[in-house]
Amino acid sequence: MPRANSNLLVQSLRGTSQVFFIENALTGVLFFAAMAYASSVTGNWATTIGAAIGVLVATLTARLLECDDPSVSSGLYGFNGVLVGAALPTFIAASPQLWASIVIGAAASTVFTAAFSATLTGKWGIPGSTGPFVLTGWLMVAAAYSFGGLHVTGDAPKLAGDVVPNLTGIPAPMDLVAIFFRNIAQVYLLGSAVSGVIILAGILIASVPAGIAAAAGSLISMIVAIAMGADPKAVSQGLYGFSPVLTAMAVGVVFLTPSPRVAVYAGLATVMTVFVQGALDVMVAPAGIPSFTAPYVLTMYLFIAPKKLMAPHPHGPVADPMIDDQGNAPGKVPVHAAGTAR
Amino acid sequence: MPRANSNLLVQSLRGTSQVFFIENALTGVLFFAAMAYASSVTGNWATTIGAAIGVLVATLTARLLECDDPSVSSGLYGFNGVLVGAALPTFIAASPQLWASIVIGAAASTVFTAAFSATLTGKWGIPGSTGPFVLTGWLMVAAAYSFGGLHVTGDAPKLAGDVVPNLTGIPAPMDLVAIFFRNIAQVYLLGSAVSGVIILAGILIASVPAGIAAAAGSLISMIVAIAMGADPKAVSQGLYGFSPVLTAMAVGVVFLTPSPRVAVYAGLATVMTVFVQGALDVMVAPAGIPSFTAPYVLTMYLFIAPKKLMAPHPHGPVADPMIDDQGNAPGKVPVHAAGTAR
Amino acid sequence: MPRANSNLLVQSLRGTSQVFFIENALTGVLFFAAMAYASSVTGNWATTIGAAIGVLVATLTARLLECDDPSVSSGLYGFNGVLVGAALPTFIAASPQLWASIVIGAAASTVFTAAFSATLTGKWGIPGSTGPFVLTGWLMVAAAYSFGGLHVTGDAPKLAGDVVPNLTGIPAPMDLVAIFFRNIAQVYLLGSAVSGVIILAGILIASVPAGIAAAAGSLISMIVAIAMGADPKAVSQGLYGFSPVLTAMAVGVVFLTPSPRVAVYAGLATVMTVFVQGALDVMVAPAGIPSFTAPYVLTMYLFIAPKKLMAPHPHGPVADPMIDDQGNAPGKVPVHAAGTAR
Repeated sequence: MPRANSNLLVQSLRGTSQVFFIENALTGVLFFAAMAYASSVTGNWATTIGAAIGVLVATLTARLLECDDPSVSSGLYGFNGVLVGAALPTFIAASPQLWASIVIGAAASTVFTAAFSATLTGKWGIPGSTGPFVLTGWLMVAAAYSFGGLHVTGDAPKLAGDVVPNLTGIPAPMDLVAIFFRNIAQVYLLGSAVSGVIILAGILIASVPAGIAAAAGSLISMIVAIAMGADPKAVSQGLYGFSPVLTAMAVGVVFLTPSPRVAVYAGLATVMTVFVQGALDVMVAPAGIPSFTAPYVLTMYLFIAPKKLMAPHPHGPVADPMIDDQGNAPGKVPVHAAGTAR
Repeated sequence: MPRANSNLLVQSLRGTSQVFFIENALTGVLFFAAMAYASSVTGNWATTIGAAIGVLVATLTARLLECDDPSVSSGLYGFNGVLVGAALPTFIAASPQLWASIVIGAAASTVFTAAFSATLTGKWGIPGSTGPFVLTGWLMVAAAYSFGGLHVTGDAPKLAGDVVPNLTGIPAPMDLVAIFFRNIAQVYLLGSAVSGVIILAGILIASVPAGIAAAAGSLISMIVAIAMGADPKAVSQGLYGFSPVLTAMAVGVVFLTPSPRVAVYAGLATVMTVFVQGALDVMVAPAGIPSFTAPYVLTMYLFIAPKKLMAPHPHGPVADPMIDDQGNAPGKVPVHAAGTAR
Repeated sequence: MPRANSNLLVQSLRGTSQVFFIENALTGVLFFAAMAYASSVTGNWATTIGAAIGVLVATLTARLLECDDPSVSSGLYGFNGVLVGAALPTFIAASPQLWASIVIGAAASTVFTAAFSATLTGKWGIPGSTGPFVLTGWLMVAAAYSFGGLHVTGDAPKLAGDVVPNLTGIPAPMDLVAIFFRNIAQVYLLGSAVSGVIILAGILIASVPAGIAAAAGSLISMIVAIAMGADPKAVSQGLYGFSPVLTAMAVGVVFLTPSPRVAVYAGLATVMTVFVQGALDVMVAPAGIPSFTAPYVLTMYLFIAPKKLMAPHPHGPVADPMIDDQGNAPGKVPVHAAGTAR
C-alpha cells in the first residue's frame, strides 16, 4: 500500500494515474507525458493544461470539503477532474469562459464523486468510477450550446438515422497496430498511437495484470467492432476501444478476483461494451454530446452490481490500493473510486 | 408451488410464461404457438426462432453463472431473454450479425436481471420485471444504427414534433374486439389478434384473476387511448395496450394483494401507463428506438415503490411462485422477477 | 412547528407554499395571488385554475392513499401537484383532455412523491423535492405530442445545434431589477416581475433567511448567465434564474445547517445550476419538453447526497417543519419533501 501523502502534487499525479485504476505518481507523470506528446502533434495545448488544472482543482476541492484523507491521498478524488479538464478543451474552443467551465466542472466533479460514492457505492457496492466525469462532461458540453461564450467544435447534433456507417473493409495490419494503441490513448481522449504506447508503459510499470487486461480489451474491441461493421474511421481513431479497455481492466482484474471464470465474464462484458458504444453514440447524438466513457461506466455498473454471481474480490470494492509508488505487491491493482466508499 | 426442475427445456418454457408473470411450462408452449402463428402470417420466422434462442441462451447463462437455483428453475432468468430474442428480429433485418446480437444480448440480459435484482429489488423491493429487456433492447437496436452489419427496419428516428397524431375517429365495434386481443399479443411484439387469443388462453389456464386483470388492462387502455385522441393506426395495432395490460396485472394482482382499494390504485396506474406510452414514444423517437415495455416498467416501478401505501402482498415482492404446472393454487399468480431478489 | 390541520384547504395552501420550502397557509394565499396577477396580465386563467385543481387533487389523493398524516398536513404531498397544475396549461392549450390530464397527473404526482420518498429519501437521505413534478410534467407534455386531444403551444422540438444563443450584450439596470424578480416568479412558471415581488414577500413573512437565500440565488444566476453569454431573451424572462433560486435555498438554508462553509458550498451549487440549466435545455429539446425545475433537482440531489461533506442539519433531512402559520421559530425553514421520508 502506498504511503499516505499530503503533497498536493503527489495526490494530483496519483489522481492522474487512477484513470487507469493505478495509484502511482510516476505513472501519472507518464500519463501527462502522453498528453503532452499528443498536444505537440495537434498543436492544442489546452487539453494538457486543462487536465493539469482539472486534477489540481478537483483534488484541492476534496481537501477543502474535508473528504476522507486516505481517498484524497490515493488520488480517488482527482481522476474525474483530470478527465473533465482534458475533455472540455477537446470539444470546446478556448475562451475565458472555457477556463471558468473547467474550474467549475472540476470542482463539481469532486462533489459528484462524493455523491456517487454515498449512493452507488455506499448502498449497492458499485464503484462510481468515471461516472462523475461523464455526467460533468455531458452537462458542460451541452451547456456550451446555450452559451455564447462557449463554442462547441465537435460534431453537430444529429438524429440517429443520420449516423451512417461507412463500411469500407478491414484495416491493413499496420493500421491494426496503431488502432491497438489508440484504443488505449483515447481513454485520455488522445488520438495518438505513441501516446497509447506511453500510457501502456505507465500501466505496466505499476501492474502487469492490469496491462494485460488493457491489451486484451483493446484487442477484443477491435475484433468485435470490425466484425459488426462499425464505421472504419471511428474504429481507426480508437473510438471503439477505449471503453472496452476500461471494462476489461475493471471487470477482469480490478473489482473482481481474477480467475478463468471471471476472465470469461469480463470477456462478455468487454464485447457488450462495444455494442453499448455503438448504442450510446447514437442515443446522445441528438443532444450533440460525445458519449465519453459512458459505455464503460454503464456496462461496468451492470456487470459489477450482481456481486454474488462471482467470487468477490477478497478486498471487495472497498479494497485498499495495492500497488504503490515503489511497485510493491506487483500483480495487484488498486481499486478505482472504491476507496471513496469508506 | 411448482416443483423445481433442472431440465433446460422446462426452465426455458417457464421463462417464456413468466413474461406474463406465470410459471407454467404449458403456458410457455401456448405462447410459442402464438408466436409461431404470427410468424406464419407475417412470414418472418426470425422472431420465433430468435425467441427460442433468446430464452435458451439466457437460461443457460444463468446456470453457468450459478444464479440461485429456484429462480433459474422458475424461469425468472429467462423471460427477459425471450423478449430480447423476439424483439431484435422485429426491428433488425436478418444477418449473421443479428444472430450474434441475439446471443450476446440474451446473455447480457441475464447479467442485467441479476443487476436489477441486486439493486432495485435488493434495496428497494422493486421487481426488475422486464426492465432488463427494455435496456438490452434499446442498446442493441440503437447500436444497429452504428453497425453496417445490422440494418434497422423500423421507423426512422425523428423529432417529437414530427410525431403527428392522425385523428380519424373511433374504430368500429369489430375492430375493437381485434384491438382487445392485439393489446395482449403485442406484449410479445405480435400484431395478430389470434395470437392474443392464444396468449390469453395460456394465462387463463394458469390463473383466472391474472386473465381478468389482463383483460381489464386491455379494455381501459383502449378507452383512454381513444378518448385522448391517440393515433388510430397505433391504437389499432395494439401498440397502446400492451404496457397497460402488464401494469394492470402487475399492480392489480401480482405484486399487491388484490382488494377493491388495490383495484382502484391499479386502475390509476393503468390509465397513467397510456400517458407514459404516448410520452416515451415521443421521447425515444430521436434515438430511433421503440419504447418496448418501458411505459409499463417505469409506471410499475413508481407505483410499487411506495409499498406502505397499500397493504403488502402477504408473500411480499419475494413471494414464491404459486401457480404450478399442475394448476395448483388457482387464483394466485407467481411473482415476476421477484424471486430473483432472494 | 405548525399545528396539524385536517382541513383540505389549509393542507392545500400549505402545499402551495411548500414549493418554496415553506409551511404556511398565508404564504400559500400570496402565491395564489401571484399566479392570479400573472393570469390577469396574460389572460390565461387556466394556469391558476389548474394550480388550484392540481393541489387539491394531489392532497386528496394522499388522504385517500392514507399517506402519513403529518406529511399530508404539512403540504408535503401537495407541492408537486400544484406545479403540475400550473405547468400543463402553460404548455398545452385548454381542452377537455387537458383538464383530464391535470387530474390524472396530479394524482400520479402524489404516488410518485411517495415513490421518491421510499427510494431516494428512504435509502439515501436525498429529498425528492420537485423531482416528481419534473417527471410528471415531462410525461404529460411529451404525451401531448402523441394525443390529438392535446395541443402543445410551446417551442417545437429541435436539435441541440438549433439552439442558437443570440448574444446582444448586458441588460440595462432597470431590466436587471425586473429579471431579479422574474427569476423568483418563474419557479411558478410566471413571467411577471410583480408576481415575483409577491412571492418574495410570501417567503419573507415566513422566513427571512429563506428570502435572503432566494435573493442571493437570483443574483448569482443573473451574473453567471450574463457572463457565460446565455440567450438574453431567456435571461430576461427569468428562465435562467428559477432553478438556481431553489438550489440556493435548498443547499444554503433548508437541507444543510447554514454556516459560512455551507454558504460557499451552496454558492458552487448555485453556479453549477446555471450550467445545468443551459445543458438540460439543450438535452431535452429534441423531445420537445421544457426542462422545468430539473436543473435544480439534479444539482440539489448531487450536492445533498454526500452528506458527510457538510455538517448535517441538526434536524437532518427528516426534520420537522419549523416555520408555522404563526411565524414561530423565525430563521428556520421547514424541510421540503423531507417529512415524507418518515
